[in-house]
Amino acid sequence: MPVLVVGSVGIDHIKTQTEDHPELLGGSASYAAIAASFYAPVRLVGVVGNDFPPRHRALYESKKIDLEGLEVADGATFRWTGQYEADMNVRNTLSLALNVFEHFSPKIPASYRDTDFVLLANIAPALQSKVLDQIAKPKFVVADTMDLWIEIARQDLLDLLKRVDMLVLNDGEAKALTGEGNVIKAGRKLLGLGPRYIVVKKGEHGSVLFSADAIHVLPAYPLEGVFDPTGAGDCFVGALVGYCASKGDASFATVREALIHATLVASFNVEAFSLRRLETLTSAEIAARAAEFKAIAGLA
Amino acid sequence: MPVLVVGSVGIDHIKTQTEDHPELLGGSASYAAIAASFYAPVRLVGVVGNDFPPRHRALYESKKIDLEGLEVADGATFRWTGQYEADMNVRNTLSLALNVFEHFSPKIPASYRDTDFVLLANIAPALQSKVLDQIAKPKFVVADTMDLWIEIARQDLLDLLKRVDMLVLNDGEAKALTGEGNVIKAGRKLLGLGPRYIVVKKGEHGSVLFSADAIHVLPAYPLEGVFDPTGAGDCFVGALVGYCASKGDASFATVREALIHATLVASFNVEAFSLRRLETLTSAEIAARAAEFKAIAGLA
Repeated sequence: MPVLVVGSVGIDHIKTQTEDHPELLGGSASYAAIAASFYAPVRLVGVVGNDFPPRHRALYESKKIDLEGLEVADGATFRWTGQYEADMNVRNTLSLALNVFEHFSPKIPASYRDTDFVLLANIAPALQSKVLDQIAKPKFVVADTMDLWIEIARQDLLDLLKRVDMLVLNDGEAKALTGEGNVIKAGRKLLGLGPRYIVVKKGEHGSVLFSADAIHVLPAYPLEGVFDPTGAGDCFVGALVGYCASKGDASFATVREALIHATLVASFNVEAFSLRRLETLTSAEIAARAAEFKAIAGLA
Repeated sequence: MPVLVVGSVGIDHIKTQTEDHPELLGGSASYAAIAASFYAPVRLVGVVGNDFPPRHRALYESKKIDLEGLEVADGATFRWTGQYEADMNVRNTLSLALNVFEHFSPKIPASYRDTDFVLLANIAPALQSKVLDQIAKPKFVVADTMDLWIEIARQDLLDLLKRVDMLVLNDGEAKALTGEGNVIKAGRKLLGLGPRYIVVKKGEHGSVLFSADAIHVLPAYPLEGVFDPTGAGDCFVGALVGYCASKGDASFATVREALIHATLVASFNVEAFSLRRLETLTSAEIAARAAEFKAIAGLA
């Protein structure tokens, strides 16, 4: 079944201690949509300016992503420049220009409105809610978020959470949103805010899935190095929803299996800059790493 | 098969933000021996003063631990007072008196010398080496260590590592010993120092097992709170070696299963002060949590 992905689309300039790459395809929707595309047909909703490079559009098209919902507005595309410190967990924003994204209001094409699997990638929670206003009766709605919205748009986020099936966030965000210092307590407490599933991401330490009556812990795929962590979280949630859509199901058992794919697609993504690894990634490579990961983690 | 455990035996005074408990049984050998006793007969080597309380000795005896190797020296037992901050990962030593432990030189009784499974719990690496000088031909030797020895006795530790089958240490120690910032790289590099297995403990984030041709990642048992983390690492390694001894085997598959038990006994231990939880813990409780943990982590 198809997945509807709504989020930001941008042009990134990424610097690490050893590398410097301008004019990269970026944005939460780009990473999430391309990650989901390995599993299911993707319908994209976002906005770009009329400067959006044809090669970025071609990358979406190579993944058979439906671009009817990709609005082209007069002006420049959203741009972000970020620099990673030697500790790749620390990232500084050097510049940010919202451009056409400043006045983005998601418009869901009529042909998208019956989509059952909906991924609200990381954008302002008020915009995420606007998407849900335009969808008929989705089967499974997943929201990603970030620390910024917890700080400046907490009420919007709380309103949104009453309408979604799953919230995905990292451990620091889970603690910030609940005031709990313990990740397990925080995850359980978040279930009380509305979603029937909570997924807490712990980066190199794996992830934890919570439902009212069960919990599942999963380690990360062991990596010896990370070249560019940008978009890892977006790929994680994109693959997660894509996998569920491919099964047409969001049972606990399916979500557990989806978490493995989320973990693996994110692990591939950080092996190269921007989306370059996912450009050439094949389903066979994912399957091979899935088998390897199940052996490494002793999974059933 | 029996396990020989050598390490420190002491009397602890532990303070947290809400609790204050003096006169507790402590020391790396106490935690490790009692954890191992759930799986195999234990032979203990350590030193106490003639002030060592009979009730602590009685606890060892209740676990059927062989105390022939527990030397009683003239003087006072090793004493340590520690305080945990609100973040239980931060611990300050308020006082420390080595007492009879200052001149401890492990003496292995003749009846212990043929022990196949040897756990060198956390003491100075030079003392750990002295133990090996007195053992006939052990089948599986495991060494625990700590940041202090990496700092002040690095060469002794490097000498020891050429003689042990497994080194167990935490992620910060693995990074300090290798100079590698990535845990996976650090673990692989440590294999080059001698041991055929490396186990890196990541606390609430689980553990990683390395051998020359395989790697195994395991999450931690999800706990909502920790009452006293003292001795968790000693319990981990005690249960690990005890489990292997119970199987008479140290293959990769057995060590993987042993890691689950290491994880679980440590998780029980942090649920109460000192060794109080392990005093009443039963094999049936461990088995029940093992089944629960395998379900939670999706293990085969």
